[in-house]
Amino acid sequence: MKYAAAIVLAALIPATHAFAYDEKDVIDYRGHIMKSLDAQAAALGMIVSTQIPADNLIAHLDAIALTAQQSLKSFEQKVPGGESKPLVWEQWKDFSERMNTFAAKTAELAQTARTKGQDAVVADMVSALACKSCHDIYRNKK
Amino acid sequence: MKYAAAIVLAALIPATHAFAYDEKDVIDYRGHIMKSLDAQAAALGMIVSTQIPADNLIAHLDAIALTAQQSLKSFEQKVPGGESKPLVWEQWKDFSERMNTFAAKTAELAQTARTKGQDAVVADMVSALACKSCHDIYRNKK
Repeated sequence: MKYAAAIVLAALIPATHAFAYDEKDVIDYRGHIMKSLDAQAAALGMIVSTQIPADNLIAHLDAIALTAQQSLKSFEQKVPGGESKPLVWEQWKDFSERMNTFAAKTAELAQTARTKGQDAVVADMVSALACKSCHDIYRNKK
Repeated sequence: MKYAAAIVLAALIPATHAFAYDEKDVIDYRGHIMKSLDAQAAALGMIVSTQIPADNLIAHLDAIALTAQQSLKSFEQKVPGGESKPLVWEQWKDFSERMNTFAAKTAELAQTARTKGQDAVVADMVSALACKSCHDIYRNKK
């Protein structure tokens, strides 16, 4: 894989090494996280639409909640570009609240599915996975 | 997002509804999971190569461990195709052991990072993230 060389190289460098961040790297990084989020949501969508066995339903919700938190962290550096509008940072309070709500709601669904069964969460999936409502405001489509 | 309509539609259908699986869906589903795994590993690679702050290091390891488990589950249905060689199912014992080891090792690294600090796991990252060693055997590159 393309990052293997970087990993080998960096195994010799402490992870906490101080350095200046390249803007392209910051944009690429949050892009990876969004891709992961998108792929997990697409996989979950296939379960919810009964195309695929539901074995991983809780694991997808867990992954989405975890990745939403990663994503918010990845936006902390103010670097407009990629598909992110400057509005992300101009309206940081709203943006971060939406992302935190997304993380919290999906984590809550995972918990509910654990305790009450998977059927108990299907109806709330739509409002929890409100990707579009944020993308409409904060994303420039490529 | 493209799956929103499916989610809306399926909110009315129990997730456990019995049905026959379409081979293309099975292949697409595990593709989503592999994409998620790849994106998480790429993000982690950027941290390890110090391109990006290390705040999410543990969260990426957690996500990779979780997604490796999802991935193994997604291969349980024997449907060669996509980028998967028939060898996956012909050598299921080896394939599944490798995937379980991958999940266990990355979960262990996350745990070590929690208890001993992130610097303690950098050196073991290369052997834990041995994506290539499996892909060389079991994947047909597109």
